[in-house]
Amino acid sequence: MHVKGELLIGGKSYPGKGKAFSAIKPKTGERLGEPFHSALSDDVEQALVHSWNAFHSFRETSLAERAEFLDRIAENILDLGSALIDRASDETGLPKARIEGERARTVFQLRLFADEVREGRFQELRLDPADSDRKPFAKPDLRLRNVPLGPVAVFGSSNFPLAFSVAGGDTASALAAGCPVIVKAHSAHPGTSELVGRALQKAVTGSGLAPGVFSLLFDAGFEIGQALVADSRIRAVGFTGSRRGGLALMEIAARRKQPVPVFAEMSSVNPVVIFPKALLNRGPEIAKQFIGSLTLGAGQFCTNPGLVIVVDGPGLDAFLKAASETITDAAAQTMLTAGICDAFKRGTSRLESKASVDVVGRGRPGTELEGQSILFSTTGSSLLIDPELQEEIFGAASLVVRCKDAAELEAVVKSLEGQLTIALHLDDSDIEIAKPLIPTLELLAGRLLVNGFGTGVEVSPAMVHGGPYPATSDGRSTSVGTLAIYRFLRPVSYQDFPDGLLPSVLREGQ
Amino acid sequence: MHVKGELLIGGKSYPGKGKAFSAIKPKTGERLGEPFHSALSDDVEQALVHSWNAFHSFRETSLAERAEFLDRIAENILDLGSALIDRASDETGLPKARIEGERARTVFQLRLFADEVREGRFQELRLDPADSDRKPFAKPDLRLRNVPLGPVAVFGSSNFPLAFSVAGGDTASALAAGCPVIVKAHSAHPGTSELVGRALQKAVTGSGLAPGVFSLLFDAGFEIGQALVADSRIRAVGFTGSRRGGLALMEIAARRKQPVPVFAEMSSVNPVVIFPKALLNRGPEIAKQFIGSLTLGAGQFCTNPGLVIVVDGPGLDAFLKAASETITDAAAQTMLTAGICDAFKRGTSRLESKASVDVVGRGRPGTELEGQSILFSTTGSSLLIDPELQEEIFGAASLVVRCKDAAELEAVVKSLEGQLTIALHLDDSDIEIAKPLIPTLELLAGRLLVNGFGTGVEVSPAMVHGGPYPATSDGRSTSVGTLAIYRFLRPVSYQDFPDGLLPSVLREGQ
Repeated sequence: MHVKGELLIGGKSYPGKGKAFSAIKPKTGERLGEPFHSALSDDVEQALVHSWNAFHSFRETSLAERAEFLDRIAENILDLGSALIDRASDETGLPKARIEGERARTVFQLRLFADEVREGRFQELRLDPADSDRKPFAKPDLRLRNVPLGPVAVFGSSNFPLAFSVAGGDTASALAAGCPVIVKAHSAHPGTSELVGRALQKAVTGSGLAPGVFSLLFDAGFEIGQALVADSRIRAVGFTGSRRGGLALMEIAARRKQPVPVFAEMSSVNPVVIFPKALLNRGPEIAKQFIGSLTLGAGQFCTNPGLVIVVDGPGLDAFLKAASETITDAAAQTMLTAGICDAFKRGTSRLESKASVDVVGRGRPGTELEGQSILFSTTGSSLLIDPELQEEIFGAASLVVRCKDAAELEAVVKSLEGQLTIALHLDDSDIEIAKPLIPTLELLAGRLLVNGFGTGVEVSPAMVHGGPYPATSDGRSTSVGTLAIYRFLRPVSYQDFPDGLLPSVLREGQ
Repeated sequence: MHVKGELLIGGKSYPGKGKAFSAIKPKTGERLGEPFHSALSDDVEQALVHSWNAFHSFRETSLAERAEFLDRIAENILDLGSALIDRASDETGLPKARIEGERARTVFQLRLFADEVREGRFQELRLDPADSDRKPFAKPDLRLRNVPLGPVAVFGSSNFPLAFSVAGGDTASALAAGCPVIVKAHSAHPGTSELVGRALQKAVTGSGLAPGVFSLLFDAGFEIGQALVADSRIRAVGFTGSRRGGLALMEIAARRKQPVPVFAEMSSVNPVVIFPKALLNRGPEIAKQFIGSLTLGAGQFCTNPGLVIVVDGPGLDAFLKAASETITDAAAQTMLTAGICDAFKRGTSRLESKASVDVVGRGRPGTELEGQSILFSTTGSSLLIDPELQEEIFGAASLVVRCKDAAELEAVVKSLEGQLTIALHLDDSDIEIAKPLIPTLELLAGRLLVNGFGTGVEVSPAMVHGGPYPATSDGRSTSVGTLAIYRFLRPVSYQDFPDGLLPSVLREGQ
């Protein structure tokens, strides 16, 4: 399979006729191959028509068929071989080893959803039999199952060209639920998107499914994605990206004649709280791990540790010294796009210009296209009066918040916005101090972790990659792990249905 | 317990100081006893402070304690005895037998949630153990549970003074989830609300819970409810009422700094589709059942059958004749409030004035405060071009849609807005014609039923009382049945937590 710069719509592929844009090699700023062309509104309409038509047969596929389809997508992605790895690495500037790891994760995720579909628990089958003798009224027969919402629009993210993109978690969980998917590719990795899209399209054909089960659209701007979300045939939206982007989609979806849910994963600074004994006993060691997590992949993770909260006291100087020394050695890294790199630099400059903020240390300087890691510090009281200090800077920048005592630390924690993760670093003797904070933390984040960092999100039945607003648009959902499938389902109750009219899974003897 | 016209806030009770309003006996328009006074913003603040404070201890109650609390509420409501029945009947104009039935349902519902809490499945406990040998990275220990969202604002509905009001389904499911509740009483039955509120407040005390677990506020207008929904301490909203009211709350909640979910059950015409053989074989019989369902409780049910869709053909005349004859005998009934009665009359007049609409029959005329049942008819093609014909008229009014053939019937069905219920009347030989329609119907309603009517909503684990917008604001939810608890929960994942820091339900050996 080759990158041809084509839209994939309802089993066909052809070049777009809209505005041209190029894949860029972020390491050099060079164009990569021939240009892509944005979809036009006709293409959106075609994708929607195909998607809606495909929905009716796709939702009726057996669990075995749907599971096999997901497995086939995984297989076809692996079959792309090094062409995919090379292209994704070229388009994102991420090392090949990282892309290989991400491919493994993506494939694992598809197979996990295949297993989840086979197992069938997500159908939430419930049978509550009739009781004709009940007084004062006979009790009807009631049966319940979950049904898929309908076609889902998925927006690929910039920072995970495979795992949160064309065949990533949103797509896998929507397909698992029985929803056709239309992906709006992220314009930062269009070639990667096309390759994975072709693998997915091939799986649709190979599984004998209606071609509209999957379509892929390109757009240099925002119009195509917005048109998708505004259309009545789209019944849910999956998005990973900026807060501004997520809010724009939420607003479009809410204004529709029939509003639909938008599952947007938007922004999080993933606070790290270091407790006194851990700070005292292991400050330098934690500092090294922290800088490792902060600078991993140029800090371009939703779960990147952007805020470290500590009580000033013994051990803090050693922690800061070790952090400062460690970050000094951090190489500057190419960021995903020139735009992301610019935003990173603007964000760090803004923070640096604040009187309340000091620089603890910087990584090695780099080129115009590379992000230089940076660690800041401020005081708890400054954070409490300046909400801007809590804003996410996407990249390897973090802020240490020195609180004057445990009460100020608690106030800082309570002032936090919703988060994807909160990490606690503690020793056994810190547990009693940490304990009273847990109920507050549970309200603030979807995942709490001890003596680790949020980067590295397990694809697990017990994972929550979500959290209260603004971490996500719906804090009751997760975009990673098997629970993600429930975003795209709704329950339907069948009352007194004759056997012949019931969905087969709810029939007697099933 | 007596009606004193008092707000119930955090274990205390005192009269409001805001605008006065009276309970009205809808049968006569007379005032019932002393006036009530609206809450002021100070009262809202007090209720919120108490609610937020109570949340921390309430969510930590054991399943057994919380279940016992729910059972105690049920017991205390029964203990109110005939005083409650009399007051609710006086305030709503509904017959005592109906109120008694509703009380039984309310008590059953509380006990069902008590059982659901005891059983504990809603916690969604998931344990995914560590694997230190996994390559390339060790796998962390991950454990998941659902936690309650936080204080919930519940808006009592006018039409179910017990089952969808102070201690109704929203309150019962929110308390079951571990969320404190602040109820904005419906101003049409303030005395009933106060009595039930006192029973609930007594259960809070009796169970030794923090007094802020429950508060009750009165308001003659909308300000108090809107202030509740706008406040950051309210984390979810339960509402049953008009589309306008629900949309207003959705907008307030969406504009908050931290948006929260609004579960609003708003409007539905609950289409009834009668298939050819059933129409031919049992038309008159179905007509009688239909008019019975339509006129039950003056038609003041969310699930009232407001639209009947049939293909013109043999049997239709007999159906219409029987319906017309049956409705002629239907007594005019007092409606819940003068405002509701006015709206009903305006709605039926508007429909009657349309050239495309004929009157099939009317019930007996009544007083100014009574609703006269009415049955209209129109054609499929008229419905397709005039969306107003699909609008809910709250009360005993329904519209028969005569379709010229099966294709037009399908087009009419596909043009429907989201519904709570869709009922199918069919004989065995209709099943093959009905079958292809089911997938479409599943997308349109939360509950599908055969040879019955939507009125009479079972409180069951397999019930869905919800449906796509505008039936509800979130078509993935139900406000009746045990699944309702999930509206007020969100998952949290705990990674590598030491046993001493884990919530007890997730500890080893639990």
